[in-house]
Amino acid sequence: MAQGTISISSPVRIGICAPSTPFTREAADRVDALAAEAYPQAELIFDEQCFFQDGHFAGTDRQRIDSFVALANDPTIDAIWFARGGYGAARMAEAAIGQLESVAKSKIYLGYSDAGNLLGALYRAGIGKIAHGPMPSDIGRPEGEHAVRRALDWIVHRQRTVLEPSLADGKKHAAFNLMTLAMMTGTKLIPDLRDHILIVEEISEYLYAFDRAMFHLCSNLASHGLSGIKLGNVGDIPDNDRPFGETPEAITKRWAESNHIAYLGRAQIGHDIENRIVPFGLLDL
Amino acid sequence: MAQGTISISSPVRIGICAPSTPFTREAADRVDALAAEAYPQAELIFDEQCFFQDGHFAGTDRQRIDSFVALANDPTIDAIWFARGGYGAARMAEAAIGQLESVAKSKIYLGYSDAGNLLGALYRAGIGKIAHGPMPSDIGRPEGEHAVRRALDWIVHRQRTVLEPSLADGKKHAAFNLMTLAMMTGTKLIPDLRDHILIVEEISEYLYAFDRAMFHLCSNLASHGLSGIKLGNVGDIPDNDRPFGETPEAITKRWAESNHIAYLGRAQIGHDIENRIVPFGLLDL
Repeated sequence: MAQGTISISSPVRIGICAPSTPFTREAADRVDALAAEAYPQAELIFDEQCFFQDGHFAGTDRQRIDSFVALANDPTIDAIWFARGGYGAARMAEAAIGQLESVAKSKIYLGYSDAGNLLGALYRAGIGKIAHGPMPSDIGRPEGEHAVRRALDWIVHRQRTVLEPSLADGKKHAAFNLMTLAMMTGTKLIPDLRDHILIVEEISEYLYAFDRAMFHLCSNLASHGLSGIKLGNVGDIPDNDRPFGETPEAITKRWAESNHIAYLGRAQIGHDIENRIVPFGLLDL
Repeated sequence: MAQGTISISSPVRIGICAPSTPFTREAADRVDALAAEAYPQAELIFDEQCFFQDGHFAGTDRQRIDSFVALANDPTIDAIWFARGGYGAARMAEAAIGQLESVAKSKIYLGYSDAGNLLGALYRAGIGKIAHGPMPSDIGRPEGEHAVRRALDWIVHRQRTVLEPSLADGKKHAAFNLMTLAMMTGTKLIPDLRDHILIVEEISEYLYAFDRAMFHLCSNLASHGLSGIKLGNVGDIPDNDRPFGETPEAITKRWAESNHIAYLGRAQIGHDIENRIVPFGLLDL
C-alpha cells in the first residue's frame, strides 16, 4: 500500500448526477472502464439523469434536483460526484439542499466549475465532506484520465498526494471558479468564508470580464474576514480587439489589495488535467 | 417651440469624457457636426482623454478619473455625457465620486452600458440629474444619429418625447445594463433602489449567462423593496451549441417571481438606436 493512502476494503459506491448540463454515454463508458481497471473497489452509479436533455440543461430543474437528492439521501451511496459543469446548478441548488436528510451529511461531494454552486451551498449548510476537483467530464481532455484518476484517488483512497500542493494543515480552504463564485455573492448559495484561504480559477473569459468579476468578488468579500486569496489557472483567454494591458495575476493582486485582502500567490487548480483537489475547510486526513 | 420642450436661450456646455474605453476622433467629428447643425445652442467639449489609450482603457485609471472630475467640477459645464461603454468605469467610479465638489450636483449626467457604474455611483451619492440613454458612440450604428439626437434632445431641451414610453409620473425609475448592475451588487457603486421600477437590458451574452446574471441580480435585490422589474431589449445573443430553451422574458419572469419581485413587462432601452431616455428617480420636468 502506498504511503499516505488509506485502505478501504469495503466497496465505495459513487453516485454520479449532472446538476448542470448533459453528460454523454460514451464518456461515462470511458470513466466506467478506467474505474473498473484501476479502482476495483469503486462502484460507479451514473444516474440516468446524467443523459437527460432539456434545452441547455441535463433535464428540467425538477429532474436535476430529484436525481441529486435521491443519491445524496441514499444510505448505500458513499460519495456524490458531479458529472460536469456548464451552467444550471444555481437553478436547483437551494431547493435541493432543502431536501437533504441527515444521511447526506457523511458523504463526500466532488466537482468544480458550475458545480461550485452546490459545493458552496452544501458547505454553507454544513453538509458533507466537500472538495473542489476533477469530474467525469475531464475524461474528454487530452490525457484527461490523469484528472479522473486524481478524483478517484481522492474519493476511494483520500490520498494526500492528490491535494493542491500549497494546502496547509491548520488552515481552512475553499476553491471556486471565479465567475461562478462572483454570481453566488449575496445569494443563499455562498458559504461563510471567514478565515479561509480562497482559491479561484477562470476559463474562457475575456480579461476585461475577469477584471470585472474580480472587482465584484473582492468588493463583496472585503469585510468578510478572508485569510487571503490565491489564483489558480486562468485558461483559454479569448483574444480581444486589443491587449488588456495587465496579467490575470496583476489584476487579482490589485483588486485584492484595494479591498484589504491578502494576495497569497498561485495555486494548482483550473479547467485542465492538472486540477488538484482542494477539500473545503480544515484538512481532515 | 415644440410642445413639451423647454426653451434654453443660453448656451448648453456639454463635457464629454470616456470612463471606460477609447473613443475615436472620426466619431467625435461626426457628433460635433450633427450638434452644430441641429443644436446650435449646444457646445460639445470632447476632453482629449476620450482619445487616450492604455491597454483596454481610454487612458489609465488616474487619467479617466481626472478627466471626469475636472469636467464635473467645472462650473462652466452644464452636462456630462459619457462617450462610450466597454469596460472600465468600475475601476474609477468610487475614487472619482469622492473628488466631486458641490458644483457637480446640479449637472446632467447621461450614458448607459458600462457607464452605468458611474450613473449608479452618482445616484447613490445624490449627485446630479442622472439619466440612462444614448452616448456619442451610438453615432457608429446604422441610423445612429437618431440615438444621438435623442440624447441631445434630452440634454439641451429636456424633451419629454424622448423618454422611455412607459415611464410614469409619481414613480421612481432606474435603468442599467444587466451584467453591469449584476457586478455592482454588494459594492460601493450600487444605489438604493427601494421603491424604484428597475429596467435592465442586455447585449451579446449567451442566454445561460443572462440567466446566471438574472439569478444573481434578483437574488441580491429580493429584499431591497423594488417596485418591480422591466426588461429592455436583449440583443445580439450568441448562438450556443444547443438552444437554451427559454426566452429572455421567461427567464426574467421566473427569477423575478421566485424572488418576490414584480415583473412589469417590457421597456424600450437597449444597445440600439431605439434606446429611450430613463431619468433616475422621479420624473422632474
